[in-house]
Amino acid sequence: MAQPGKVFLGPLVHSVSLSELEIIPFAAVAVNHEGSITSVHRSASPPQAEEDTGPAAIVHRLASGRFLVPGFVDTHNHAPQWAQRGLGQGMHILDWLDAITFPNEARFADPSHARRVYASCVDGFLRQGVTTASYYGSVHGEATKILAGLCLDKGQRALVGKCNMTRNAPDSYRDASVGESLRATEDCIAHIRALDPAGRLVRHVLTPRFAISCHPELLRGLGELARANPDLPVQTHFNEAEQEMAATRELFPQFAGSEADLYEHYGLLGERSILAHCCHKTEYELRRLEALGCGVAHCPVSNMTFLRRGIKVGLGTDSGGGFSSSILDAMRQAMIASHAREIMSEGRDKGLSVGEVFYLATVGGAQVCGLGDRIGNFEVGKEFDAIVVGTQGAEQGIMIMVEEEDSLRTVFKKFVMTGDDRNMVEVYVQGRLVKGRE
Amino acid sequence: MAQPGKVFLGPLVHSVSLSELEIIPFAAVAVNHEGSITSVHRSASPPQAEEDTGPAAIVHRLASGRFLVPGFVDTHNHAPQWAQRGLGQGMHILDWLDAITFPNEARFADPSHARRVYASCVDGFLRQGVTTASYYGSVHGEATKILAGLCLDKGQRALVGKCNMTRNAPDSYRDASVGESLRATEDCIAHIRALDPAGRLVRHVLTPRFAISCHPELLRGLGELARANPDLPVQTHFNEAEQEMAATRELFPQFAGSEADLYEHYGLLGERSILAHCCHKTEYELRRLEALGCGVAHCPVSNMTFLRRGIKVGLGTDSGGGFSSSILDAMRQAMIASHAREIMSEGRDKGLSVGEVFYLATVGGAQVCGLGDRIGNFEVGKEFDAIVVGTQGAEQGIMIMVEEEDSLRTVFKKFVMTGDDRNMVEVYVQGRLVKGRE
Ligand SMILES: [Zn+2]
Ligand SMILES: [Zn+2]
Repeated sequence: MAQPGKVFLGPLVHSVSLSELEIIPFAAVAVNHEGSITSVHRSASPPQAEEDTGPAAIVHRLASGRFLVPGFVDTHNHAPQWAQRGLGQGMHILDWLDAITFPNEARFADPSHARRVYASCVDGFLRQGVTTASYYGSVHGEATKILAGLCLDKGQRALVGKCNMTRNAPDSYRDASVGESLRATEDCIAHIRALDPAGRLVRHVLTPRFAISCHPELLRGLGELARANPDLPVQTHFNEAEQEMAATRELFPQFAGSEADLYEHYGLLGERSILAHCCHKTEYELRRLEALGCGVAHCPVSNMTFLRRGIKVGLGTDSGGGFSSSILDAMRQAMIASHAREIMSEGRDKGLSVGEVFYLATVGGAQVCGLGDRIGNFEVGKEFDAIVVGTQGAEQGIMIMVEEEDSLRTVFKKFVMTGDDRNMVEVYVQGRLVKGRE
Repeated sequence: MAQPGKVFLGPLVHSVSLSELEIIPFAAVAVNHEGSITSVHRSASPPQAEEDTGPAAIVHRLASGRFLVPGFVDTHNHAPQWAQRGLGQGMHILDWLDAITFPNEARFADPSHARRVYASCVDGFLRQGVTTASYYGSVHGEATKILAGLCLDKGQRALVGKCNMTRNAPDSYRDASVGESLRATEDCIAHIRALDPAGRLVRHVLTPRFAISCHPELLRGLGELARANPDLPVQTHFNEAEQEMAATRELFPQFAGSEADLYEHYGLLGERSILAHCCHKTEYELRRLEALGCGVAHCPVSNMTFLRRGIKVGLGTDSGGGFSSSILDAMRQAMIASHAREIMSEGRDKGLSVGEVFYLATVGGAQVCGLGDRIGNFEVGKEFDAIVVGTQGAEQGIMIMVEEEDSLRTVFKKFVMTGDDRNMVEVYVQGRLVKGRE
């Protein structure tokens, strides 16, 4: 190790696989100066730090009642909607876009507005343990660059996408033309590459809002950008709602209602695709997503179907469409929905366990974002994105009180089911402290 | 006014009816020394306090960014489960009771355990703006008295019930006999009456857990207690789940699967009844509840059906069965469920608005608890149970940022959809400050 790293000593909980939650009473996690995990020692009794790390490493011994979990991955997040979450609940998707979302997003033409809201957004999510977010920006190149810069400055791992829209949106809030939309996208890609050449923390993500808002030539152009830039992920809304699907069918009759065929035709469907919602799904669509290796973001109701097929699934706050900005809430929603489904199916569809929703929020989300080899748990060689969870004294917040006889597994469950950002006393991304005091 | 009271000056939001949310930019609410509201002045510009209140009243002018809402009513809350919320998610109800709930509740035989957990429970709910709770206690008389005493000391309005169970529970956790169960209940009733003779803040609530756990003679005896004590409400679980309903049908075949007929037969169904869940409902059961004037607690999925029939409905955290201890969460769940239902019914069942779920959490809950004439909104003559909501600076918490141009209605919605206890800077019950600094 060229420079001294850090060693974290304390209890640790992470997902090894969908079915295996590993709980280590005394872990020693060594992290090098680049933020990568170089070793993880497991022990049932207090470990000897020195032997793992070299004498120069900084030892960070977790205080009593604290434990480590991987940072959360938010696979679907509309950054410009940070300040309008929860407004217009119950409206149909297209009406809601017109009445609330588009007028709000149009305000991001003003860079100072963008800087103010996005700074609050990135701070707000880091505070809640979202170490990685896949952001939809507004259509504005300038605002999207500001968002990328803020992520980098504040230390949040992020996919940041200039949103592409050339039609079915007010003139005041869309790209002026297909050419203009593609040019602004290329400009954003170049800008973000200049900020973070290796894409260590921040990358551009190609972001056609959904087919309804894109001319065929725009989708074709974005497909070409995807081909030319194999490092860039792609995100869009997919089979989200009846109203949206009907409108898509009308605009693109040649695909006979298959959004999978539509996006595949334009070169936008593959292993790098992050598909939001996927609420409606036919056997045909499932087979296509499976064959193409797409990832699915944020589908509390349908999670189990995808998981059983081996399709990558992560959770998302859908900040804007949803009201909560907490991945803990998303985990609980996913559990509630899966248990309702278990009841409706008379037990055929098993509900999700705490370990399984935790997997979705960490490893699953990392896979969906194309970062499965870099983050999601504390595997050696991955980067150290982590939350130090505190449960005692002032750190308890509104989490269930911890009792003396509680096992680490019980305390972990109490945190997942009833904790909030007050329990996240420190947050790290790539080994860098982004919330809390060292 | 015999003694000087208080006058609260500031913006105010409350429900006048299910369909009418009243928003007053500058209200002056005068509260006498007994905690009753003596006048409410509505104005679109800053009011003159003095003329309403007499010179001796203490004027409490809300700081900028703050507004008043009524306190929340939690119509269904298992106090002994405060420390086990969220454990055993996805288990069937009867299995969950045996494996998790009963062993946990058995610990309340120890008064010091009860005092420790119940103190945390009452503090935790007051902190989250629950000014009124309808509590199920454990089977233990002593622990239940402790809970009632804590509510009174800490200033929470509460219905507190010793839980009645004589069968289908482990020997280590049930009443020894029907006679013993009834004697302990009468003893609790007398004790709580001695603590609060007029029932101004705390009352006993008759609490047969559910028919499965009660011998017929126990239900008969509780029905007699209900008749002899017309001031006492009654609460039980009602048509909660398939497994529970099947077991009830087997134990009480004479009622042919109608829990309404069962509880009515034993004199436990009427205007004072608080029926938890009511997930399954036939037209017949609905008609009975309607005719008898029963109240329904905590049914996100079925709320609208009851509301449309004019049946009283409130929200509950179901602390224990549910994981959240927040009525704000219950409101959001109710909205999500109602919108899912709207979609499934292709628009026939309209989803709930923010104003409607807020009504359920305040006026609706008050009605269900038999307190509709005393609390729920800021009507003159009612008592002052209120939350001062803060939205700015350190008080913002994780609530959506407030923008300069936001109307009070928008700020209110932002609070309901994304706020938490950090926004509840002061909480009052009967005019007494129970959270925050004056
Ligand atoms: Zn979205
Ligand atoms: Zn219950």
